[in-house]
Amino acid sequence: MEKPILFPCNLSSIPQGYSTFVTSAGIKDRSLDVGIVVSEKTASAAALFTQNRIVGNPILVGRKHMKKGKLKAIIVNSKNANVLSGSDGYENTVQLCEFLASKLNCRPEEILPCSTGVIGRPLPVQKILKAIDSLPASLQNPPQFDNFARATMTTDTVPKYTSRKVGNASIVATAKGSGMIEPNMATMLSYFFTDAEIESQILKEMLTRVAEKTFHCLSVDSDTSTSDTVAIMANGMAGKVDLQEFEESLCSMATDLTKMLAYDGEGATKLFQVHIQNAPSFQEARAVGKSIINSPLVKTAIYQGDPNWGRIFMAIGKTGFSFIEADKVKILWGNPPKEYRDTEEELASLSAYLKENAILDLTVDLKAGKEKATVYGCDLTEEYVRINAYYTT
Amino acid sequence: MEKPILFPCNLSSIPQGYSTFVTSAGIKDRSLDVGIVVSEKTASAAALFTQNRIVGNPILVGRKHMKKGKLKAIIVNSKNANVLSGSDGYENTVQLCEFLASKLNCRPEEILPCSTGVIGRPLPVQKILKAIDSLPASLQNPPQFDNFARATMTTDTVPKYTSRKVGNASIVATAKGSGMIEPNMATMLSYFFTDAEIESQILKEMLTRVAEKTFHCLSVDSDTSTSDTVAIMANGMAGKVDLQEFEESLCSMATDLTKMLAYDGEGATKLFQVHIQNAPSFQEARAVGKSIINSPLVKTAIYQGDPNWGRIFMAIGKTGFSFIEADKVKILWGNPPKEYRDTEEELASLSAYLKENAILDLTVDLKAGKEKATVYGCDLTEEYVRINAYYTT
Repeated sequence: MEKPILFPCNLSSIPQGYSTFVTSAGIKDRSLDVGIVVSEKTASAAALFTQNRIVGNPILVGRKHMKKGKLKAIIVNSKNANVLSGSDGYENTVQLCEFLASKLNCRPEEILPCSTGVIGRPLPVQKILKAIDSLPASLQNPPQFDNFARATMTTDTVPKYTSRKVGNASIVATAKGSGMIEPNMATMLSYFFTDAEIESQILKEMLTRVAEKTFHCLSVDSDTSTSDTVAIMANGMAGKVDLQEFEESLCSMATDLTKMLAYDGEGATKLFQVHIQNAPSFQEARAVGKSIINSPLVKTAIYQGDPNWGRIFMAIGKTGFSFIEADKVKILWGNPPKEYRDTEEELASLSAYLKENAILDLTVDLKAGKEKATVYGCDLTEEYVRINAYYTT
Repeated sequence: MEKPILFPCNLSSIPQGYSTFVTSAGIKDRSLDVGIVVSEKTASAAALFTQNRIVGNPILVGRKHMKKGKLKAIIVNSKNANVLSGSDGYENTVQLCEFLASKLNCRPEEILPCSTGVIGRPLPVQKILKAIDSLPASLQNPPQFDNFARATMTTDTVPKYTSRKVGNASIVATAKGSGMIEPNMATMLSYFFTDAEIESQILKEMLTRVAEKTFHCLSVDSDTSTSDTVAIMANGMAGKVDLQEFEESLCSMATDLTKMLAYDGEGATKLFQVHIQNAPSFQEARAVGKSIINSPLVKTAIYQGDPNWGRIFMAIGKTGFSFIEADKVKILWGNPPKEYRDTEEELASLSAYLKENAILDLTVDLKAGKEKATVYGCDLTEEYVRINAYYTT
């Protein structure tokens, strides 16, 4: 079955005062590998970074630069993560920020640098400096956020972006990620750009709450990137907005991107949405959901429609939470949710449901509280193995 | 490359007073699916069970039966785990124990029942009762532990057993397990039979210590079985032994079985031994090791010899332990350990090492303490996906 296109991206609403630059610096090949977004006015900004203890040089630099909550630009390169990349790795990122700042006439601290790709190779920083030497003249306006999203891709098969209107303001968001994806108090590479006027501390709080319910509920493969970054820039050119409405839009956009990321997981043919209900807390609900979407036995079963629902119970039980009682737990499939468990006919129906749908919904009722969470994953296929058995070579 | 045979099993030393019975009850097909080991004299015994919150009916019954630390026999069926198997599931296990006890002229509490296989199907208990109706006349003596090991197999490709001599006593041990294998304070199905004289409390303490350093350091797929059981019977017919020597033999046997289980992991072509050195504690060393052997990105890289060592650092860092410092951590491959990291030549050598060996050794020096642990895993292959995408159907 050809993988259906589930998520058309849209750019119907573009924030004011942003321009973009996208190119191939030839880091690995001739595909797009450098993307820059610049704001006309210095923007309020916030960012979350990976909680992996081993991080890329751009994370080390980015954490410092975000302290003042102000950004003029974000620069991303793909094909090389600048992680464990030798003694020059940190200096390369610093140099990149200084060069771009000189071009944009801002302070280096107003640049957020990001790199994604292979770990452990020196960053060919000269190639990137050369590729962006034509700035600022070559900045594109109107901005091309779709191409920016494309420049950030690694093993992604499609660029991921979306937009919303909030009062007079607009928001565009992009994301990239396909493997090494289990955000854990941080996220993959994702960026929000808006012309709303919001101060950086509020942006940080919003972003933290939104990530908790969206990106942190995602896992493609249980692995956590050393480069994960999610950031937001708000240049204020459209004035103030209703903050609650704005946060709801952020959350809705982040949910869309999370689904796109799961569905574009390496080798994935299915988006797997697991809804945990009636847990003692959101955190425990999410942990049960994560255990299900990270189980290789569950992931392989849903791939080919094996109605092996016992593996779902196994994954629930292996969390070890004492509130889990086998006799109480209910698992239901589809939308609306339905139980398929006992007869051969039910198993055949479950198998057909798993085989015939690109979006799979599983609802787990723990009957152990009042909280809930939804997590997003995908299946595990032979293609996943092939992609990752030959990635650097 | 054909998978080399790394672990020849041996039964050079058989404990006194045991007999076996092995048959096909036709639970799923005509392969061996029922195995029984009976001790002439009631034995001191101990067992550890899975820490999954959702467990099979044999675990519920077995936990009760082990309270007195006495066993006459162990009965195992494969092809059906008797987990979440309907309202009769528990009664079926009770009935099986009562029937076998009547045949062996012992109390039902002296039987340890175990089931392994598909979750969620009613156990065809009548078939098993019929198959063992010829007992005790049909018990085999000398015992056939190799066939007993065979009867416990599910997706295992080879039976797993080993033996040792300790003073005048002998020990035989068997194990089964190939998928749904991450023992977590318990283990897969594994049994030790000895004619040494040791009381059950000492056996329990020994078994707990031994499992901690062996079976609990194993993961094939990060999933934890609902049926995991490790048990030991000591019938005393060979008299007392040196306890330290005995425990060392248990540990050595459990290490052998752990390696066999990892190498026979579903779809695996390689045994992956990860030695963590200089950690603050054994538990943290093991957790770092487990993070490496459970990472799908690491598992796919070692499968085809992709020298993508950055993924090892990612897996170390994602544990989040604050003692991990990227600049200090060293990763070394092979035996003796060697660093391959920077040049194209080194990467080519690493790729060759990964491709050409069926046993891969990785040494991680955390430079953060004095404790160590070795964990055992395997690669992730297309065959793993195929085995598990079609398991019940």
